[in-house]
Amino acid sequence: MIKYILSKSHPRYLSLYYRDLLAKGVRNGITSLQGLTAHGRGEAFDYLIGEKTHSFAQKAIEAAAAMLLLSRKPVISVNGNTAALVPKELIKLAQVTKAKLEVNLFHSSKKRERAIVAYFKKCGAREVLTPDKTIIPNVTSNRKHISQAGQKTADVIFIPLEDGDRTEQLIKLGKKVITVDLNPLSRTAQKASVTIVDNIIRCLPLLIAEINKLKHTNEKELLGIVKKYRNRPVINQALQQLNRRLTALSGK
Amino acid sequence: MIKYILSKSHPRYLSLYYRDLLAKGVRNGITSLQGLTAHGRGEAFDYLIGEKTHSFAQKAIEAAAAMLLLSRKPVISVNGNTAALVPKELIKLAQVTKAKLEVNLFHSSKKRERAIVAYFKKCGAREVLTPDKTIIPNVTSNRKHISQAGQKTADVIFIPLEDGDRTEQLIKLGKKVITVDLNPLSRTAQKASVTIVDNIIRCLPLLIAEINKLKHTNEKELLGIVKKYRNRPVINQALQQLNRRLTALSGK
Repeated sequence: MIKYILSKSHPRYLSLYYRDLLAKGVRNGITSLQGLTAHGRGEAFDYLIGEKTHSFAQKAIEAAAAMLLLSRKPVISVNGNTAALVPKELIKLAQVTKAKLEVNLFHSSKKRERAIVAYFKKCGAREVLTPDKTIIPNVTSNRKHISQAGQKTADVIFIPLEDGDRTEQLIKLGKKVITVDLNPLSRTAQKASVTIVDNIIRCLPLLIAEINKLKHTNEKELLGIVKKYRNRPVINQALQQLNRRLTALSGK
Repeated sequence: MIKYILSKSHPRYLSLYYRDLLAKGVRNGITSLQGLTAHGRGEAFDYLIGEKTHSFAQKAIEAAAAMLLLSRKPVISVNGNTAALVPKELIKLAQVTKAKLEVNLFHSSKKRERAIVAYFKKCGAREVLTPDKTIIPNVTSNRKHISQAGQKTADVIFIPLEDGDRTEQLIKLGKKVITVDLNPLSRTAQKASVTIVDNIIRCLPLLIAEINKLKHTNEKELLGIVKKYRNRPVINQALQQLNRRLTALSGK
């Protein structure tokens, strides 16, 4: 796919590989230039948490899996970064949860929307919704434009890799929001119902596996998992992990 | 220069302004797409240290100034990000230290090299070196290609904004390396002789001012400053600052 001069033995090979994947996304009209910068921010937080999936993320993944299985109408929101990084995994997630895929871009562009839809279809998606004239109230950014058949009527929305104003308003509308965000301090991370503080590349396969594990569990048990789950302690554990690692590293 | 729709009162105006400057660098063929991601990583670390120059950076700036003034042959290594962000400041730094400017790119491109040289000359530089057939041993990335008249024969090399394998090998060759890196955990930050953990936009004017302040100081005193300086405690103070701020932010 990507011609890369670095050998796989380079300590930052994977990080550089995904950085290249996003640069390719820009060249293909899928990812915005600003999306590259946003990805770099994520890289910094991943660096600080130690580039691994921690127990706090595992807890959030379990709750997210139960919540998606209980959902009557789940929607997966995709943007230019997730489209470039994990299109096949998102399609797989949509299949195992019977969710709809919906494009939602911060940096508005009908052309980019179309490119993302085409790319998802090329990767195997059957249907990908795009914003129509429906609007989320009190959201000032372009993210307010949603699909009537998607987010507007959804009960659970999976919104990875965002730092925005949409999550808070969706929660106010009575919906559940699951997010994946390496920055536990972001607005989305702070406001979501379930916050998976992990790299989307690591956590999507784990989330899909957890859904497959729980898919024959009865509704009562799934409800028990969701009811027991508390997002605040999970976010705090992520922050504590950042702190622990910095303390350990600074003591060297 | 840059048309920007945001007002200067926006809380993230400066950060967005420099992000745009890099995007412009991409359009002008100076900055790589991957460079935008690297910048995003820096943004996150800057956010975490509080977007200000701390005392640990000031200490490193003083040592860097003395080291550059003592140098018989200083070289300033420039890449696509520093070219887009601080060309005039780097030219000024080269003037006050009688250093040579040398282009060194991780994502190799003769075309981009030429664009960077042309841009520096447009900004007032007289000479800008580029890699010839000279190589640093044990560096596998494209950064191994250097200039015989530049880094190969330099005694002090100023390498801002990198996360790489070059610093370690240059140190092994007996050279001193000064870096500017917002990530105190990066390999360059960890291996350099002097690590300025600060935003290059904030610290370059301070470094130039420090050089102007010290330029009439005698060699013995300058040597005293360099000998007294310890990089490890300075890096540890930067890590402790990240820690303190994360703790404060998470306590909200």
